[in-house]
Order: sequence, then structure tokens, then C-alpha cells
Amino acid sequence: MRVGYVQFAPEFGEVERNLRRVTELLGGARADLWVLPELCTTGYQFASAVEVEELAEPVPGGPTTTALSAIACGLGCHIAAGVAERHRDRIYNAAVVVGPGGLVARYRKVHLFSQEKRWFVPGDLPFPVADLGPAKVGLMVCYDHLFPEAARSLALQGAEVIAHPANLVMPGLAQLTMRVRAIENRVFTVTANRIGVEARTGETLRFTGLSQVVAPTGEVLVQASPDREEVGVVDVDPARARDKLLTPWNDVLADRRPEFYRRLVEG
Amino acid sequence: MRVGYVQFAPEFGEVERNLRRVTELLGGARADLWVLPELCTTGYQFASAVEVEELAEPVPGGPTTTALSAIACGLGCHIAAGVAERHRDRIYNAAVVVGPGGLVARYRKVHLFSQEKRWFVPGDLPFPVADLGPAKVGLMVCYDHLFPEAARSLALQGAEVIAHPANLVMPGLAQLTMRVRAIENRVFTVTANRIGVEARTGETLRFTGLSQVVAPTGEVLVQASPDREEVGVVDVDPARARDKLLTPWNDVLADRRPEFYRRLVEG
Repeated sequence: MRVGYVQFAPEFGEVERNLRRVTELLGGARADLWVLPELCTTGYQFASAVEVEELAEPVPGGPTTTALSAIACGLGCHIAAGVAERHRDRIYNAAVVVGPGGLVARYRKVHLFSQEKRWFVPGDLPFPVADLGPAKVGLMVCYDHLFPEAARSLALQGAEVIAHPANLVMPGLAQLTMRVRAIENRVFTVTANRIGVEARTGETLRFTGLSQVVAPTGEVLVQASPDREEVGVVDVDPARARDKLLTPWNDVLADRRPEFYRRLVEG
Repeated sequence: MRVGYVQFAPEFGEVERNLRRVTELLGGARADLWVLPELCTTGYQFASAVEVEELAEPVPGGPTTTALSAIACGLGCHIAAGVAERHRDRIYNAAVVVGPGGLVARYRKVHLFSQEKRWFVPGDLPFPVADLGPAKVGLMVCYDHLFPEAARSLALQGAEVIAHPANLVMPGLAQLTMRVRAIENRVFTVTANRIGVEARTGETLRFTGLSQVVAPTGEVLVQASPDREEVGVVDVDPARARDKLLTPWNDVLADRRPEFYRRLVEG
């Protein structure tokens, strides 16, 4: 199975332009699963509730999932990507996995970062895992990386690959935590980060690139630059993520002792 | 508050000798909290059940906790250390915090590593946090580092410093995961690892040193060599561990969404 990330600089509000850029970047490479950044067609830094409402879209059926499904159909692949979702009167920082047949998995970001709390409703769906055939793929978004419970929930559902669309601004932080998410769950992780700068409000956001694919050992298999648009691909064997043995005596999931973890679910 | 680790090479089965070595190493430095390695007075690589039974001791009241309490009294400090505990007909890979007045906290290793499963009963006590005055200190042992649930349980109980006695054999692994435990919980961590080689059975174990203290940012404040006996100390401000703000909008513990973590406690 070949997995890859698409690292690029979405232009704020230019959904059609950003989808064209994704299409261009995907033209030169092949993968079974592509991961795109968080909010990859709208851009990140909203300046008003009106802007968010105008750019958010139904999932499925909106321009992003429709276009990405068409790309997936043309390339014969799956695509994980972040999308601003409008559902009734609520707007979510969402993510999807689409394939040639359309929507396969959906997620609404559970842990909102910084000013996202002004624009989005916290996610109300469980962390999803979809069987794509070559691998079971779990989905989490950006700041979820800081919460070990997110990747753990995915691994406990059998995820072998974690797709992690992101818009990271803290240099090196998620690159580190995602190595540990891979190690502690013995899964592959694919983080797709964006690059570029947004300074539409008083705040300047510099997105930090360094998209990466990590092996269950924590080894970084491929990593992008901090500041260039690029795709990265690598062949992975999902069977490696089904082998949870750290030593002949230690299956890292079977070694868990849930009866001692009760505090993690107390309010 | 000053915290420190004692990194040394216990000699297998030589409890009195190992306690003398600890006393020598502590003679030249000062800290409010010292962390010693896992099983620091017995050594690690047992060859038979008879050996474990002979070397395990009551906690408190056995030679290790008695001697360490006396040292803590003389130095006016607290000491966290690993000890083989015999309780009725069961033997645990345990750890304690002792102070000038004796036992302050006890723990029995919840996640057993490799052949420890032959010699020890899995821990049956919750992850403990003790208020030592200058800081609330949590206790976990060695391989617990791989399970984010351990450090998380301690942080949710208010631990500001995690004392982590260890006998690590996998180069660099816990040094990495413990940085992430510090970051995701915004706590200080003090890992005391041993050095030396034990080859009493068919297997050769090389202990990897690199004891370290990590700040809530993930910064390694002080780290030992991979192969020398040494102590390391650093001043830490526990107030930094009470501030859970990663950004003005993000308290990393308050941002948790326990209702989405139910899988972590299912059997």
C-alpha cells in the first residue's frame, strides 16, 4: 500500500483554485491513500462568522467532497482531507475520507484549537475508522495530536494507518507527538500539514509544513520541507501495524490495563 | 524546588552494597526530590522464583524503604525508588516515595515488561500522587512510559512532577515518550535509569542510562550520559506545571472530551 501527503498553501476563500492546486499536485504521483491538510479548500484564518458560514459546505454534497470524490475516482485512490462542514445551523471543523464511490468516513474535530473555538462547534461524532481494503484507516485532525486519547481510540478500533490532516503553527510539536502516537499504538501515521502565511486578522499565522509519514517504530519514513509545496509518498505494509509486539512478551494493546484508566473518562 | 536523578549500576542481589552506593552518590549534591532507578537495590535480571522471593521485601519495613527513609531524614528530602515488594504470597515490581517520616506513596507496576511477567504479579493499586509540600508528585515505573494512560492518570490527579524509576533497555525510546508525556500533560518528568549490564541468564541486558528531567514544554532540562554513574539536578517551578495553557484559548486538560474516550476503558 502506498500512502502520501499533499503539502501546499491553500489560498483563503478560493475553494475552486485550491481544488485545482490539489489536482495539479496529485497529477505527478500515485498513492492508494492521499492525506490533504485541514480546511484545505477554505483556508484557515476566518475573520467573521459570516465568512465561515459562506465557506462551509454540506458533507457530502458540497464542492470539496464532490470534487475530491471525482479526483479519487479518476486516480483510483482514497483521499483524506479537512473541510469546513455546515450541518443544519452548525459549522464543524470536519474531515472526510472519500473514495471512487464517494464518502467513506466522516469526522468532526473533537479538540478545537485557539480561535477555532469562535467559529466551530466541537465535534459530536466518535473518532472514525474505515476499512479501505488495503488498510483500516483512522481519522483525526491537527490539535487532536496532543491528546493521546484520540489516536488510542482509533488504534483500539483497529486503525492501521492514521490520517492526520493539519494546519500546524507550532514548530516541530506535532512532528514529535505523532512519532509517539505511532510508537505507543504501533500504527502508521500520515500528517499532512499546510504551508504559507495567513494574516487576515490582527494575528499572523505561519504554517510550518514538515508533513510526514511515521512507521510503527516511530521512524520518520518521509518528511516534507518546512516551506515548499510538495507531495511525499512511501510504501507501507499494514501488516506491520497489526503486529503489536514490542517484545515477544509485550503486545502493546493487550498489555493495557483499562481498569486502572477510569480517571480518563471521568468528567 | 530542586529535583534530581541518581543513575548508577546496581549490583545484582547486593542490597546493602547498592544502598551504600546510593548514599555515596547522594553525598555530593542536594535536591528536594531524588528519583532512583527501578528495582534499585536488588538488580533486575532474576533467574528463578526463589531468587525473587529471597530478595523481595515488605513495604514499608524492609531494608530498602527503611534505609531510604533514613537517608531522606538525614538529607531532609524525599526519595522515589523502585523496590521488589513481597506482600503475603505475592511479589510486585513496586516503587515508593519516602520522606523523613517514612513511606509517603506506594505503587505496584501496572504494565509489566518482558520477563518481569515471570516473576511479578501485575500491579493492583491505582497510579498514586502524593503532595510533598513543594509539589504534588506522581509515580510510575519504566514501561508505564509507553502507555499514555499512566501519566495522564497522574496529571488528572494533579501531579506536577512525575517520578519515573526505570531500568530501560531500548535505546532512546522512553527519552522520547517521556518528552511527550511532559508536553501532553504539561508536567515535569524525572526519569532515573540505571546503567550496566546483566547477563545472569541466556539473555544479555544492557541498560541505557540517559536519565533525564523534562519540562512541561518538552525541553530536556538535564540528561545523564548513557554509561556513567552520576546524579543530575535542576531547579523546577511546580507552578509551571499548574499552568495548563498551551495557548490563551487552550488548557490542555480542560480541552479534553472524556465522552469520546470511552473505548479506552472498555475491556
